[in-house]
Amino acid sequence: MTQRLGIGVIGLGTVGAATVDLIQSTSAELFRRSGVQIQVTAVTARDLSKPRDCDLSGVNVLPSPIDVVQHAEVDVVVELIGGETVAKDILLRAIELGKPVVTANKALVALHGGPLFDKAAKAAVPIKFEAAVAGGIPVIKALKEGLSANQIELVAGIINGTGNFILTEMRDKARAFEDVLKEAQALGYAEADPTFDVEGIDAAHKLTILASLAFGIPLSFEAVFTEGIAHLTVDDMHYAQEFGYRIKHLGVAKRVGDGVELRVHPTLIPASRLIAHVNGVMNAVLIQGHAVGNTLHYGAGAGANPTASAVVADVLDLARDAQFEQGSVVWPGSVSPLGFLQDQMNALPLRSPEQFRCAYYLRIHVLDEVGVMSQLTAVFAENGISLEGIKQKEPTHEGAGVSVILITQVCEERALNKVIDAVSALPAVQDEIVRIRVETLK
Amino acid sequence: MTQRLGIGVIGLGTVGAATVDLIQSTSAELFRRSGVQIQVTAVTARDLSKPRDCDLSGVNVLPSPIDVVQHAEVDVVVELIGGETVAKDILLRAIELGKPVVTANKALVALHGGPLFDKAAKAAVPIKFEAAVAGGIPVIKALKEGLSANQIELVAGIINGTGNFILTEMRDKARAFEDVLKEAQALGYAEADPTFDVEGIDAAHKLTILASLAFGIPLSFEAVFTEGIAHLTVDDMHYAQEFGYRIKHLGVAKRVGDGVELRVHPTLIPASRLIAHVNGVMNAVLIQGHAVGNTLHYGAGAGANPTASAVVADVLDLARDAQFEQGSVVWPGSVSPLGFLQDQMNALPLRSPEQFRCAYYLRIHVLDEVGVMSQLTAVFAENGISLEGIKQKEPTHEGAGVSVILITQVCEERALNKVIDAVSALPAVQDEIVRIRVETLK
Repeated sequence: MTQRLGIGVIGLGTVGAATVDLIQSTSAELFRRSGVQIQVTAVTARDLSKPRDCDLSGVNVLPSPIDVVQHAEVDVVVELIGGETVAKDILLRAIELGKPVVTANKALVALHGGPLFDKAAKAAVPIKFEAAVAGGIPVIKALKEGLSANQIELVAGIINGTGNFILTEMRDKARAFEDVLKEAQALGYAEADPTFDVEGIDAAHKLTILASLAFGIPLSFEAVFTEGIAHLTVDDMHYAQEFGYRIKHLGVAKRVGDGVELRVHPTLIPASRLIAHVNGVMNAVLIQGHAVGNTLHYGAGAGANPTASAVVADVLDLARDAQFEQGSVVWPGSVSPLGFLQDQMNALPLRSPEQFRCAYYLRIHVLDEVGVMSQLTAVFAENGISLEGIKQKEPTHEGAGVSVILITQVCEERALNKVIDAVSALPAVQDEIVRIRVETLK
Repeated sequence: MTQRLGIGVIGLGTVGAATVDLIQSTSAELFRRSGVQIQVTAVTARDLSKPRDCDLSGVNVLPSPIDVVQHAEVDVVVELIGGETVAKDILLRAIELGKPVVTANKALVALHGGPLFDKAAKAAVPIKFEAAVAGGIPVIKALKEGLSANQIELVAGIINGTGNFILTEMRDKARAFEDVLKEAQALGYAEADPTFDVEGIDAAHKLTILASLAFGIPLSFEAVFTEGIAHLTVDDMHYAQEFGYRIKHLGVAKRVGDGVELRVHPTLIPASRLIAHVNGVMNAVLIQGHAVGNTLHYGAGAGANPTASAVVADVLDLARDAQFEQGSVVWPGSVSPLGFLQDQMNALPLRSPEQFRCAYYLRIHVLDEVGVMSQLTAVFAENGISLEGIKQKEPTHEGAGVSVILITQVCEERALNKVIDAVSALPAVQDEIVRIRVETLK
């Protein structure tokens, strides 16, 4: 008897339409892989009168998300509407009905995943969200399964394509942040309100998820330190380059001692690292495991088709796990949403920014006077912070003052804050000191 | 009741010892992930009297591989002895007994996988071999599961670390092939007989496996065109660089029309591609899917711990899939060895070298005479092959002749062979013409 799985797709925006299309156009291949006939049986969208880029003939077009969840021919629910309210209701109802959910909704997972996954575990309902982080790159699967024998030490990712596009353009073409942002908005890479992307909130959602997958800790969005890219300048990019670095906006989840640091910020990376060469809208996630060493996972982090690729892979996983028993389907072998059993999540101490251990790039604007360099370096020495390098840039014109660029060795952020206060108080120092974190990613 | 899985490890070389150690040292974490107590219950090795880098207290040390397979406390067999004869017997006996096998044995899979997997499918016994290709990088899982919604168009991998180490040293330090090979042997990267690595046979085994996973075609080692790296020179690397390329030894599996090209050879890659920056012993596999676009999977391709990382991840997958039923274990939801159901493998036409479509780098040594360039280019034009670039190098000394470097546009290899014959016949052309394939990997 042929085994069939009915898929209900909620949301028919670009990703939803691409998902419907991908399931339909690859159904023969999905069967070759799973032995299951996977079929879109029901859909809904906010405005059902809009024309869609997918073929809905033979598909039940239903008025509301809950109608899709409850439909008798829907075995698996695909949630692609985003947002937190309706999406949460969809998951809750699906769990009640014992129907697995595939979602691309990073905010939902990062902010509400804990209690939702607890409920799902009790009901033995699989929840999958490969598309929620780094789009088409199967990095969630790598953390949950492919690298599961490792104690993960570090995850560092370029996980916001808009931000990476902006930084790449700034560096390659010496264009200012605001200028590139406008282009990104025109190209559709950035929203009219770009806050989510350029302030790092989107990356913080994704980092929250990656950190739970890496360390088996509860989802802790509120603990992520987040700094955006709007203050970066082309000068800083060029100075970083003179020291052998590139600047990328990274999400970093790092095991330090018995605790964990979760932070999103612009970061100097040695130009020799592979991830330093990830440009444009592309994403990449570096994962460091105690047995495997460094791995890098690179690909398209957004876009309708790459996202649909991840969504449909999740659907196929469910089809392979499914066991068909007289008219019903069960999913005994499915992997837990976060890779660890829900009742085995362990909170680790989350370190505050004051405790972060990092190296730092500093740009200090000073009067062009004799002895300034020596005053600066003395402050660092007094506070026990070693310097990896220091360079004074030529003044752009008479009386303009000069920029001094310093790169420190690794120190505690608390100590660096003290140094910055002390340096700022020097009479020769003008303007605010620019600080960018440095990660060697060795 | 606690669910337990007994693991039998056959072979206690560096990888075997690292595997035993990794299972033992991470057992608490493996339990957090699966809810199963995973335990090494039996081992064997060729010489049982040798000291081992792992703790065997409480482990049954048995005289032979088949003893391990048959042991009552062994639920899953881990085969790490390599070779084809005994290893094959191990798999056959395990399949008979309904015990899943995890192996790192690429030759076994590439050469004997077809009939073995057929038997395993009939007996519903999972076989897993993530460690067989690209060591610790979960690239087999990516092809089977993470990117399973894609029609794969291209797989191109740096899948032999020894070869990549040699090419990296040649390029970075202008050292000759033979010289670096000796160092690689001293460092333990290359065997005393380096044929497997430098002639591309090891890469061809791995490419065979990747191609089956990518296209759902039967394992076809004998169809892989294989060319090694021993003939490459530092000059060619520098000339390639002048045209914006780097030379890597790639395994390429490419869908072309309704057929497939399987080839291992040195390849010029545009320096702007991420994979062009994969250096030293590291591996990386580029996968191009119709929905996801290009993804890259990078990490350690060899070494005891990275290989053990992949082996133990396979073991954990089995633990998650396992269903414990009154004293026995069954594995209903496991993914097929090659990602497609064994009875759904489809042979696609495998193109012969004459049919390959590629661009080519050619180095032609000619007498330093007027009109030679025009004679050369005329032959290409007459045969309908367009040139992307051409450069004449200065002669190294009076009367030495000059090297002409050409890069063609994409053409059929058959046509190129004709051109090479015609060019070789020109009176001004001396020595054999050097030919290296070019892939843009767009």
